[in-house]
Amino acid sequence: MIENQVVIIGAGISGLKAASELYKRGVKSCTILEARDRVGGRLHTVSGYQNRRYDLGASWHHDTLVNGLFLEELNLSDDQRASFVFDDDSLVIFDAEKGRVDQDPGMVLEILLEELLNYSELHFFEDLGVQDLNYFQMVVKYLYERRGLLTDDQMRYLPQVARCMELWHGIDWKSQSSKCLEIAHQGRNALVLNYDKIVHRIASEIPEGWLQISTEVKEVRDDGKNVFVTTSKGETISCEYVIVTVPQSILAHSLQPEPRVGRIEFVPPLNAKIENAFQKTHYGALGKVVFEFDECCWSTQRSHILSLGKSSSNLSKKVRAAQDVTLLMKELDADTKYEFQSGDSWDFPLLFVNMAKLTDVPSFVMLMPNPLTKYIESIRDKDKLLEFFQPVLENLLKTLGCTEPIIKDFEDKLVTPNKKTPVLKNILTTSWTVDDYALGSYSSCEPGDDPMDLVLALSDNQTSRVRFAGEHTIMDGAGCVYGAWQSGKREASFIADKLA
Amino acid sequence: MIENQVVIIGAGISGLKAASELYKRGVKSCTILEARDRVGGRLHTVSGYQNRRYDLGASWHHDTLVNGLFLEELNLSDDQRASFVFDDDSLVIFDAEKGRVDQDPGMVLEILLEELLNYSELHFFEDLGVQDLNYFQMVVKYLYERRGLLTDDQMRYLPQVARCMELWHGIDWKSQSSKCLEIAHQGRNALVLNYDKIVHRIASEIPEGWLQISTEVKEVRDDGKNVFVTTSKGETISCEYVIVTVPQSILAHSLQPEPRVGRIEFVPPLNAKIENAFQKTHYGALGKVVFEFDECCWSTQRSHILSLGKSSSNLSKKVRAAQDVTLLMKELDADTKYEFQSGDSWDFPLLFVNMAKLTDVPSFVMLMPNPLTKYIESIRDKDKLLEFFQPVLENLLKTLGCTEPIIKDFEDKLVTPNKKTPVLKNILTTSWTVDDYALGSYSSCEPGDDPMDLVLALSDNQTSRVRFAGEHTIMDGAGCVYGAWQSGKREASFIADKLA
Repeated sequence: MIENQVVIIGAGISGLKAASELYKRGVKSCTILEARDRVGGRLHTVSGYQNRRYDLGASWHHDTLVNGLFLEELNLSDDQRASFVFDDDSLVIFDAEKGRVDQDPGMVLEILLEELLNYSELHFFEDLGVQDLNYFQMVVKYLYERRGLLTDDQMRYLPQVARCMELWHGIDWKSQSSKCLEIAHQGRNALVLNYDKIVHRIASEIPEGWLQISTEVKEVRDDGKNVFVTTSKGETISCEYVIVTVPQSILAHSLQPEPRVGRIEFVPPLNAKIENAFQKTHYGALGKVVFEFDECCWSTQRSHILSLGKSSSNLSKKVRAAQDVTLLMKELDADTKYEFQSGDSWDFPLLFVNMAKLTDVPSFVMLMPNPLTKYIESIRDKDKLLEFFQPVLENLLKTLGCTEPIIKDFEDKLVTPNKKTPVLKNILTTSWTVDDYALGSYSSCEPGDDPMDLVLALSDNQTSRVRFAGEHTIMDGAGCVYGAWQSGKREASFIADKLA
Repeated sequence: MIENQVVIIGAGISGLKAASELYKRGVKSCTILEARDRVGGRLHTVSGYQNRRYDLGASWHHDTLVNGLFLEELNLSDDQRASFVFDDDSLVIFDAEKGRVDQDPGMVLEILLEELLNYSELHFFEDLGVQDLNYFQMVVKYLYERRGLLTDDQMRYLPQVARCMELWHGIDWKSQSSKCLEIAHQGRNALVLNYDKIVHRIASEIPEGWLQISTEVKEVRDDGKNVFVTTSKGETISCEYVIVTVPQSILAHSLQPEPRVGRIEFVPPLNAKIENAFQKTHYGALGKVVFEFDECCWSTQRSHILSLGKSSSNLSKKVRAAQDVTLLMKELDADTKYEFQSGDSWDFPLLFVNMAKLTDVPSFVMLMPNPLTKYIESIRDKDKLLEFFQPVLENLLKTLGCTEPIIKDFEDKLVTPNKKTPVLKNILTTSWTVDDYALGSYSSCEPGDDPMDLVLALSDNQTSRVRFAGEHTIMDGAGCVYGAWQSGKREASFIADKLA
């Protein structure tokens, strides 16, 4: 049996940062066990057409006023740090039929969205016991109560604009908790180019030999004095502390008896506090599709373009005629069943990042929420993907001033006829939902959830030798790279203090 | 001596609402003493050219999700309530030299402003004892700390855009507390057309005979059993409760021995808690100038246009070269001394409300902060006013697509030559700073202030017979019409309970 001071399970950003900190603090022996054949976890930079590079996992520095990782990067020289570009200019928003609806002084949809989010927040101030609603229900409640103050067009398009929040949480509005809806931004967002540089920088701070990839952990046994970590290769490492950084989605399986890839058996089992907390938290699936064109034939004025889900022309009539808001919620819910599995791409809000503006690369990186992510990630055929997204894509290009139809050239045989023709060379998609070590993207909240419970259950334990880190174990930066990074730092600091 | 159950000092919205509530609750005798020859106080609707009507005092329903007065109005029939129009579409912003700078994807000034306000807020989270800065200093601190992330143009124009906050607080950025800077909007803002309708509706709910105008109060004497209110006419009214609704600016003089118009002598004097609280609060002077044209020759697409104060072309150089932020604050402070008294109209941010869009009336209502307000309100001559504002006004019109020079016609003798010519028929200004019963506009905060102290000192007293109401006596809706209205309701309810 190998003896170590510390074992870290998972070489994502939290595990790597923890190892780097432990090393700086003088810890002599540590092993990082990583199930995948690469480091980075849900930070994953890949290459596409002509070796263009994209982050299929997290791609932003959020909250740059308080983001510790961003501020650390800022102190590095240009060649040491990953480039970034602020890409949070105002959204272009288009509807399939109506065209552009952003910055429209007649509809002021951005201002209504702000009011709607405000309204939702105030709802939960009314009293502590007020029942959570899903976001869809909250939107309907707002429309109903403010109907005397809204035009028909505002009623029609605001709900679809409001769904831009799905691209933050990675789940659809009917699954999203209103109570956990709002995101308190602390400063601008910057797109990172690319995250692998940061991953490799932090990994390079760790001694050779600490990292062991392609090694899945099967069991974590705590005998009260030491912790024994057993891998799928049959190896057992004894240590004083273990930091478990596997995603929330994987940890959840430790509470179920069924064996599965990635599942860790905890002996003794995860405590009741953790088990209970898992009843009050969920896991999203933000997905991405990258559309790679040969040349840029569209406007590079704005960074982000939001394609709206299809709106309902008779919604305002129904809202105005309604007598009871609960019945109205039910009626409108039935009216808006998703049809994407029949090939309808207009069921969800889709956010396109205009890489041609940001990096001079003629590609769009598209973000989508679950359940669309799960559906799209099950399709591996590029022709089928194009077939699905083509209507949206044509509209996107039209909105950005490119009116010629898309020419498909996945075999890269054509010479682009002229600068106005969009020639699509390749499509890349994420596969987080079918990845056994991710099973989605990051933590999210359904109605009634309280993410604080899990954070406290996993982090607020001064005596345990089994420690937890990752985006799901921290409130400041929850779901973000810097939160995960900070949580790794937190656990390393705790352990180093104890070992000192 | 007259005997009354209640005396209310001041027939502004808080006094009128208090009286109306007392009457509804069964109070039989009450007198409202109003020093002016009109009701409404700092709600004041006036007529201009061709009988166009404007509110020179408050003109908005703010926070319409929680604004009790707005929600009361909504429940009235159309003919009973004052019309309103949501006018919070996104700002047009122009600079004298650069022209329009709003919604510029290269500068994203709106997004930087959001980050700056966020930055300021976070500053005060660092620890409870952190020192307040004036807003100008906070802007400099932000520029200094984020200079690596800002372009020269962003550094140049952001400070001036940031000054839009002066139009909320009514004081300039060098007087404004950063700690009390942010305004938590609760829903959209709606322009009221006009407030006199609301004032008269509430006044009409009060029995005839309760209201006594043109009657100044000289003394409020509390003998422990009754309160005696003596007017300038020598009349004394005895009552069980008095509600003092005079503005904070007037109440402040009760703490000074010097006699002056509007001053009330309190016997016993205002308590130490109130006296201390007055050390931690100030009073602003938001002013208005109305420019009345014969016909509309400009764009009616947007409601609000912000004219920026003059920016400094070498500011970014100085920020980049600075070694010490405190020295930088001093240097830039000296660079930006106001020159308005020499006739320079580009020292302050000015907000123009485009009435042509909102009410079809070809006028602009311009808002300005102190100390400009005080200077402008001292000028009564229209030609001088035009001379001062003409450069800004010509730029405003140009920004809105009207390039012909302004023709002045205060004598209303000309026939407008064509629809493209801006013929200025009249200028109206406020006179709040020279009004003995107002002495400015509403409460504001200088560095180190804490408005909560005064609110608590004036409202949190369960035993006193001398009660206080008004915009300065309440936190939710502080400085707003609905806050004043709510405070009147609060005091009426307290007294009615006691008298029941």
